[in-house]
Amino acid sequence: MTLALDSAAQNLLFREARTANTFTDDPVTDEQVQAIYDLIKFGPTAFNQAPLRITLVRSPAARERLAQHLAEGNQKKTTAAPLVAILSADIEFHEELPTLYPHFPAAKDVFYSERPARESAAALNAALQAAYFIIGIRAAGLAAGPMTGADFAGIQKEFLDDDHVPFVVINIGKPGQDAWFARGPRLEADQVITTV
Amino acid sequence: MTLALDSAAQNLLFREARTANTFTDDPVTDEQVQAIYDLIKFGPTAFNQAPLRITLVRSPAARERLAQHLAEGNQKKTTAAPLVAILSADIEFHEELPTLYPHFPAAKDVFYSERPARESAAALNAALQAAYFIIGIRAAGLAAGPMTGADFAGIQKEFLDDDHVPFVVINIGKPGQDAWFARGPRLEADQVITTV
Repeated sequence: MTLALDSAAQNLLFREARTANTFTDDPVTDEQVQAIYDLIKFGPTAFNQAPLRITLVRSPAARERLAQHLAEGNQKKTTAAPLVAILSADIEFHEELPTLYPHFPAAKDVFYSERPARESAAALNAALQAAYFIIGIRAAGLAAGPMTGADFAGIQKEFLDDDHVPFVVINIGKPGQDAWFARGPRLEADQVITTV
Repeated sequence: MTLALDSAAQNLLFREARTANTFTDDPVTDEQVQAIYDLIKFGPTAFNQAPLRITLVRSPAARERLAQHLAEGNQKKTTAAPLVAILSADIEFHEELPTLYPHFPAAKDVFYSERPARESAAALNAALQAAYFIIGIRAAGLAAGPMTGADFAGIQKEFLDDDHVPFVVINIGKPGQDAWFARGPRLEADQVITTV
């Protein structure tokens, strides 16, 4: 075994886990989302930044408001999924840095006094946290259906504010009938990894 | 148990895993890196994009060339770590899309004919893949020390080309003496999650 992680966990999180396009009617509870968050909140970010914000879209009315901003091929998936989450990056994440990274409270002012610096740090670190969240959904025995085919400016205006930039919408639930395509190929290690 | 993932795996990947600042002398082999990649290559991205590129920095000479572009506080960590990886985003990832996403080969031209669209997609999806890679390092029983305190333009010029944009450098190895700070606090779920 080259990996320390057991096979069942490898399969659950990566090897057998798949992006789902259909879901059963089984609900996804707030307790499940809380358990996912309480696991993935430990995923590392720069200076322990925590820009990720999760907007759960539950009500049918909110679901319809969201669907109108999605690419046509994504709309039915989202109105049918038991739970949908809009992930956004909080540009004002630096306000929490003195609490989250007490080793260097000045980081807030030294690195993040300018909004463009915050925007790029928030985008990177919220994306890292989004990946942890997807892994967390799988860790809960659920399937994630992340989507970037959306009018995110429209979603931001509809559900968020100027300081919260949405970048992915994730359907969450147990996989339903014909939930996925055939597995797509992956790049070989020698196409990705070089050594200097 | 609200989560399907077993406790040992939760601890290995998230709850007990920590960002390491010091490492033992135990080598990290190419076989280990290959095993990490062969696990995390299955992590989901938009249209199965695979922009992540991993540049392993092994030789002492290359290590020195890299260290000069790192923030002062990061230099010693990197010269002492058994293995260092520069993660970059390949802006020309769209060339592989017809292979990686055969369900919609036109995506390459429909969405990614303009470089700015490729730059933003590469940044997001390579960041997702970087998070999977960090999880993979932990899955291998190793510790990751990701760093964003660096002159990435300098690193790009030194090791890469215009089409490969570095965004994080990761020290990899077994944790050494006094490998980490005390665990920083995390945001509570109700600071991160809202429902509409």
